[in-house]
Amino acid sequence: MAATSAGETRTLAWVPVSEITRVLGGIEDPCRRAHAFATLTRINTLYMIMRAGSGHIGSSFSAADVISRLLLEELREDDLFFSSKGHDAPGLYAALIGLGRLDEDLLHRLRRLGGLPGHPDVGTPHMPFNTGSLGMGISKAKGVVLANRLLGRDQRVYVLTGDGELQEGQNWESLAGAARSAMGELTVIVDHNKIQSDTWVRDVSDLGDLEAKFTAFGWAVLRCDGHDQEQLAAAFARRADEHADRPAVIIADTVKGAGCARFAATSMREDEWRYRFHSGAPAREDYLAAHGELLEAARAICGPFGMSTADDRPPVKLQTPKLPDVYGEALADLAARDARVIALDADLVLDTGLIPFWRRFPLRFVECGIAEQDMVSIAGGLAYRGLLPFAHSFSCFLHARPNEQIYTNATEGRKVIYVGSLAGLLPAAPGHSHQAVRDVSALAAMPGLVILEPASPEETRAAVDFCANTPHSVYLRLVSVPCPPETATLPAAPLVPGRGTVVREGGRTVAIGSGPIVLAQLLRAAEALAATGLELTVVNLPWLNRVDAGWLADLAGRADRLFVVENHYTRGGQADVVARTLLELGLPGPPAFLGIGVEDVPRCGRDDEVLAAHGLSAEHLADTIRKHLS
Amino acid sequence: MAATSAGETRTLAWVPVSEITRVLGGIEDPCRRAHAFATLTRINTLYMIMRAGSGHIGSSFSAADVISRLLLEELREDDLFFSSKGHDAPGLYAALIGLGRLDEDLLHRLRRLGGLPGHPDVGTPHMPFNTGSLGMGISKAKGVVLANRLLGRDQRVYVLTGDGELQEGQNWESLAGAARSAMGELTVIVDHNKIQSDTWVRDVSDLGDLEAKFTAFGWAVLRCDGHDQEQLAAAFARRADEHADRPAVIIADTVKGAGCARFAATSMREDEWRYRFHSGAPAREDYLAAHGELLEAARAICGPFGMSTADDRPPVKLQTPKLPDVYGEALADLAARDARVIALDADLVLDTGLIPFWRRFPLRFVECGIAEQDMVSIAGGLAYRGLLPFAHSFSCFLHARPNEQIYTNATEGRKVIYVGSLAGLLPAAPGHSHQAVRDVSALAAMPGLVILEPASPEETRAAVDFCANTPHSVYLRLVSVPCPPETATLPAAPLVPGRGTVVREGGRTVAIGSGPIVLAQLLRAAEALAATGLELTVVNLPWLNRVDAGWLADLAGRADRLFVVENHYTRGGQADVVARTLLELGLPGPPAFLGIGVEDVPRCGRDDEVLAAHGLSAEHLADTIRKHLS
Repeated sequence: MAATSAGETRTLAWVPVSEITRVLGGIEDPCRRAHAFATLTRINTLYMIMRAGSGHIGSSFSAADVISRLLLEELREDDLFFSSKGHDAPGLYAALIGLGRLDEDLLHRLRRLGGLPGHPDVGTPHMPFNTGSLGMGISKAKGVVLANRLLGRDQRVYVLTGDGELQEGQNWESLAGAARSAMGELTVIVDHNKIQSDTWVRDVSDLGDLEAKFTAFGWAVLRCDGHDQEQLAAAFARRADEHADRPAVIIADTVKGAGCARFAATSMREDEWRYRFHSGAPAREDYLAAHGELLEAARAICGPFGMSTADDRPPVKLQTPKLPDVYGEALADLAARDARVIALDADLVLDTGLIPFWRRFPLRFVECGIAEQDMVSIAGGLAYRGLLPFAHSFSCFLHARPNEQIYTNATEGRKVIYVGSLAGLLPAAPGHSHQAVRDVSALAAMPGLVILEPASPEETRAAVDFCANTPHSVYLRLVSVPCPPETATLPAAPLVPGRGTVVREGGRTVAIGSGPIVLAQLLRAAEALAATGLELTVVNLPWLNRVDAGWLADLAGRADRLFVVENHYTRGGQADVVARTLLELGLPGPPAFLGIGVEDVPRCGRDDEVLAAHGLSAEHLADTIRKHLS
Repeated sequence: MAATSAGETRTLAWVPVSEITRVLGGIEDPCRRAHAFATLTRINTLYMIMRAGSGHIGSSFSAADVISRLLLEELREDDLFFSSKGHDAPGLYAALIGLGRLDEDLLHRLRRLGGLPGHPDVGTPHMPFNTGSLGMGISKAKGVVLANRLLGRDQRVYVLTGDGELQEGQNWESLAGAARSAMGELTVIVDHNKIQSDTWVRDVSDLGDLEAKFTAFGWAVLRCDGHDQEQLAAAFARRADEHADRPAVIIADTVKGAGCARFAATSMREDEWRYRFHSGAPAREDYLAAHGELLEAARAICGPFGMSTADDRPPVKLQTPKLPDVYGEALADLAARDARVIALDADLVLDTGLIPFWRRFPLRFVECGIAEQDMVSIAGGLAYRGLLPFAHSFSCFLHARPNEQIYTNATEGRKVIYVGSLAGLLPAAPGHSHQAVRDVSALAAMPGLVILEPASPEETRAAVDFCANTPHSVYLRLVSVPCPPETATLPAAPLVPGRGTVVREGGRTVAIGSGPIVLAQLLRAAEALAATGLELTVVNLPWLNRVDAGWLADLAGRADRLFVVENHYTRGGQADVVARTLLELGLPGPPAFLGIGVEDVPRCGRDDEVLAAHGLSAEHLADTIRKHLS
């Protein structure tokens, strides 16, 4: 919904598989061939990301030579390889397409419904695991090794991790068991490109002496230039020859965005703190420059090769505000008034809106790295001393990874504000590891925790004030796509816990929702229904795990039918708490009730197609409401 | 409820605080005084645990000398100290009582309502954090240090961890930030007693070169004999003198149960794999022997001192089966028939009933150590290869720590069986870190996951078969206290997802529940209500996150009032799903509805007093039902 109308037509180019096959067939030296393949896959990776409108260039490019080496030279037919970080998905897809292992047509369908998901998913061939939730890969690989041993299967297992990813504790939790079980079958390659989501790893949470760390955990350690095929070949050979009886890590020193000067982190200016090509799609001028450089590099090694082109009209993005940006400004303003406020981040300073805060209050900003459990427990320690910590991450990670840590803070009665951005089904392009539709359920029963989802910029600012003034801990749930016009100017009603506001007066058919996505779709559905004579009353209830019984009784008295629509799984969210409260009210004739939410694991795709696929577009909602009436 | 009638009277002895004060006042040498204090606190620790009927002796005794050193000699008035592992709570309490910092009367109230909780809780003076959920201590301490720096407070922070605890990834996740921030204020002491819950750390998940690990993470490392006051003093002095500008760890080599031969791990026979004094209370003969040894040791260093005694009647424990034991036998039987079955454990082989499985199928048993995230992702890897993994831990940890890992397995469509023991409010003695009353809520919306809680041995066996045969993943929720007589012989009705069984025929007042605790209390409440003329119908609904709409419609048709009683928080569990389903049925006149569950953070105490405190005893339930009728 944030990106449906199309912009200016542009021409994008890719290398067809037939040309890749021809080029590879003409190169005898394995290292030169692998190098050539990597240069060609980078061209197609860039095409895919431009076509999709978003994707991880930097990480795909830094890993391209390692992936090329593995796929062309190292992996035997039965060997297993997967990427744990998942950010290199476009590059991995491009390589698999280049080798004919995925359909060529998928080049054009990155991050589209039925195409290739933003992060790896088992629904795609050659993807044994869902990744994108960081730090699980080594553990999963250990499971495969243990199963293989039981089943008598001779298989080597290769896992590619990021370096920022190593900040997740699960990596270190997983190492001991592999060493103890002498897992010579298991090789981890670290794509050590030195830059994580926000900026340099050393500035976020320095990894220190990485070789010493792995060695201390009992692993064999090798290190090489991850862009040099001769060095990579030697490292894999030594791994097999010298350490066959234990797990090994190959630390591949790489450059984020390697392969063209435009994207390479080595091109960053001294005063640039943020690497610009981690995610998203490059601007037109960056694309053109990078594409030219990539072509030149590829032709230098591959000789001439043919290209295909396609015209494409990129989606036009809404220019309305994003709630995390509004939130970030409001938090900085709050901090200016309230010295207790301190902000914690888990390597998502841009996406959680924290840059203004960080600039204004650098001493009250704690960058924890990709270490959500550590962050949440640190917040507990800060709250113990009377400070008011705001802990930030994407909702998908924040509700789940430190779930027990949040509970421990709750049982201590500490007030901590948890702020999750990227909440809900949209944006749908990154895929389900990043679509938080289980967060309300997983946090709903935290003692004393209030779950609050604002729908508009003004309500977001009011929510920040609520967080400051309430005695409760709060989970603030922020949708990250630009605010739909229907909700961008919605005024904030006073935030009274459990009470909602009518945002569209209508008849005795009432729909409750929260947040910009659901309310905008409901308001559009109401317009469609009005055209057929049904006046839908739309209610904004921003409280997701509590509802005021008196307010609900009043609303129910004015309703024949009550719908609760959720940007969340149908189970465990707002519909459950409204239904439970309504039933316990014991009204003589309660309204007919239906909860509508996400029924299945979220699909990946363009926002409009995914909303429709899950039955949550305005059209589908109007249909569902109409059907329920008859 | 499992321990209400009393047994034979026995006499237990402790050292009164006045005597401790007198003895300490008579010793000038600080090391001798700290040593003396530790010997006296061990006597009182044993008293407290005997009196409570359970507690962690081994860990309290191994840490006693370190705690004595810290409290008497190292900590300045404003310094902060807490134990991260929490298992040493009785020892820590005994020391604080001995120094007059906690009321002497609390010696008699370990693990009792209003007394001293089984694991540290902020409700007790001098406990800054709730612990017992492992691996969070270093992170919390970092939060305090960061807050202190902002507030200009000069404070040193000391955290005591276990060694098994270091298997949790959060510890390693937390180290980098402390090094990066040069936290000279932060000292971690590892109580390196070499034995974790089940057995030797080296046999569970070997820590390898612990000094090298901490060094690789940028910490200063010191090591000493944790029972030698001179060595401890030297280590703390070196920590301050040589490493003032960075975080430091003191690895204190200790012996689990140190202080008397009877409990010391060094007394274990070669063929003993399990240390017998990790938790629980010692048998009478062990108590007498250990008490004698402790007295002798204390008198050797303290000279003569007076003792107080009290007569005490220990609770008689029910001899009925515990569901995890029944489960474990059934799992081993299943494994004999089904070669896909593989069991994973997180250092709770005894408490999860896995010993029979482990003995019969050692090659199909994976001991992961205290590393639940690793375990759950390993299970995902095993399932990828077509095996059927059963992953085990206490419910309190299993639902929360690896919450995101469970979700990732779910989105991959892998079938994994998660088995949580120690589910619910009872036993209430360990305290809320171990009372899982939020597990259903936190897992309810996992796609495809079935949550099942059996009420009886027979239903437990049927549940194991269900787990083998269903296409779904299952979270099997097992209460660990002995089955109350009312449910011990309850037959298993066929397990049809979402459908329950009437276990007591009555009138149109219907109560739904699941599991042995709730059903036993409801059956007792029904007897009480019957005496006043109300015939309560009691229904066993073992499905906690789904209910069959047709079955519920039928039940609702026979009910004027419907209660759902839960061994869980009131929010997010079975009552929510029953209410939602009931309301969506759109019955013309639905029954009056009330959900009854745990409203507040669980109290610690004897089972009967805690059930009553939360309004879930038969008497309270009968009262609530009676009141709701009028």
